[in-house]
Amino acid sequence: MYRVGIDVGGTGIKVGILNEAHQLVTEGSIPTVISDAFESQVARIVQCIRETASGAGIGEHEIESVGVGIPGIANDEGVVIKCTNMGWNHVPFSATFRRLWDVPVRIDNDANVAALAESVSGVSAGTSSSVFITVGTGIGSGIIINGKIWKGFHGIGGELGHVILKLDGEPCSCGNRGCLERYCSATALIRMGREAVHGHPESGILASASGDASRIEARTVIDNARTGDPIAVEVYGRFISYLSQAIASVVNLLDPEVIVIGGGVSKAGSFLLDPIREEYKRYVIFNDQPMPEIKLAILGSKAGIIGAAML
Amino acid sequence: MYRVGIDVGGTGIKVGILNEAHQLVTEGSIPTVISDAFESQVARIVQCIRETASGAGIGEHEIESVGVGIPGIANDEGVVIKCTNMGWNHVPFSATFRRLWDVPVRIDNDANVAALAESVSGVSAGTSSSVFITVGTGIGSGIIINGKIWKGFHGIGGELGHVILKLDGEPCSCGNRGCLERYCSATALIRMGREAVHGHPESGILASASGDASRIEARTVIDNARTGDPIAVEVYGRFISYLSQAIASVVNLLDPEVIVIGGGVSKAGSFLLDPIREEYKRYVIFNDQPMPEIKLAILGSKAGIIGAAML
Repeated sequence: MYRVGIDVGGTGIKVGILNEAHQLVTEGSIPTVISDAFESQVARIVQCIRETASGAGIGEHEIESVGVGIPGIANDEGVVIKCTNMGWNHVPFSATFRRLWDVPVRIDNDANVAALAESVSGVSAGTSSSVFITVGTGIGSGIIINGKIWKGFHGIGGELGHVILKLDGEPCSCGNRGCLERYCSATALIRMGREAVHGHPESGILASASGDASRIEARTVIDNARTGDPIAVEVYGRFISYLSQAIASVVNLLDPEVIVIGGGVSKAGSFLLDPIREEYKRYVIFNDQPMPEIKLAILGSKAGIIGAAML
Repeated sequence: MYRVGIDVGGTGIKVGILNEAHQLVTEGSIPTVISDAFESQVARIVQCIRETASGAGIGEHEIESVGVGIPGIANDEGVVIKCTNMGWNHVPFSATFRRLWDVPVRIDNDANVAALAESVSGVSAGTSSSVFITVGTGIGSGIIINGKIWKGFHGIGGELGHVILKLDGEPCSCGNRGCLERYCSATALIRMGREAVHGHPESGILASASGDASRIEARTVIDNARTGDPIAVEVYGRFISYLSQAIASVVNLLDPEVIVIGGGVSKAGSFLLDPIREEYKRYVIFNDQPMPEIKLAILGSKAGIIGAAML
């Protein structure tokens, strides 16, 4: 038997089919068409699964379940409560899907399913508790406790990105100020880089962006920090300090077995991991005790479909 | 059969004996003598339990277990890893106790046991997940998930007071800056009150402290806010805002069924609860969804012995 995992994103929808050993045997994808009616979007997803399965010689009756990861929240009845990128608000995803294909369907947040994927067949495999943090445009997170996703009693938890890290700090798109993702995301690193070159036109950061501050990306700052540009080193060091403090807060509150860092910024590899591993312990209250290991995610962009299939 | 609960504090040690319906049937206490050797301290606790039991006509063989709440951390083998107030560091509490009285002994952090007490027979009874926050000299917390204390994989979690709430903020006794308890505890309210009267000698806060800023207590600020003193209203409003943001961070990350506020400041009752209930939702990311209720603890100073007995 096989399980299907679907990763719904604002630009594309990915489909993966896993065998019983949690191995990805085939994949497919369709572009996201946000202007489509909800029912048509579901129908296109069903169609994509059917084509992907048949392309790999897998019959419909061999698929035992479908899991869906969305950039939003859903309840246990398969209703998508909120998924801003897709324009879905209180839509009955599972029921709509099952009218076209009667198979068990489960839905969860995309960071939660990535956390599950890493904890079952990724870098945190074999652990009973972990917190997965995606450091990308924003900060996403998924909490695994006793081997299961903990998304809260009302299904609104796991939003580390909107834990307040600086009272009265930077305004956030959510309407609050000082949210953690304003200091620890790729977007934050870009903002800090752009601010820093204002007073330092000589910085390598600006040269790498062809002298145009608006073209500074997270990678621009990271690459210049690697080569020792003083402004980039200062900005990146501050970013590492903020992220380390955020991680230490997770340790002080939740103390999982492992903390996994994924998302675009994690591509910096050991240049990200090594300084964090050195610094976060300083902010842990019981820092003379054993504490969570920090690791980089290994499933990358496949984590979404793999984890969804595991739901 | 009966269960014993012990609440170890820096000034006194309380002993309570509970029946099978979790009711407290008798209590005893001894002063804490920190200068005593560890073995003597344990012997005095054993002696106090024996006297308390016999005073209520309870025989030693009728006691099936002993639970201990400490202002520190302990492991599952009954070793106190760290308990600064008592001067205990890696001391074998259970083993020492059981040489004097061979009964099962379990130890946990005092905020964790208070959380357990409230979740079994207090204000959060009947819920499967809750976060208990004590707002006193510092901020303590206990997390209950699926009916059990979650103190982390390494036993160092549940320390909400040292989650960072303001990057580069007020220095904390733990060595970090901007810890949550620097903004949300009674100590924080006192600091804010003392700072505010500096520029406002006309404030009722100062008058209530006989003109001596060093005599301002949390209650001084709260009482003056109640009667409408403008400086006290401003300071207390800021305190409520900080505590509301801290609570919203707990919701965004953990989303328990209920959040319970205890500790000295909770004696302000609805004058504390009402504005928090109104304000915290503003900082919750999915604030158009059902979310945790905020309640005041009801077991008060008995929560420690009741929860310890439940371990």
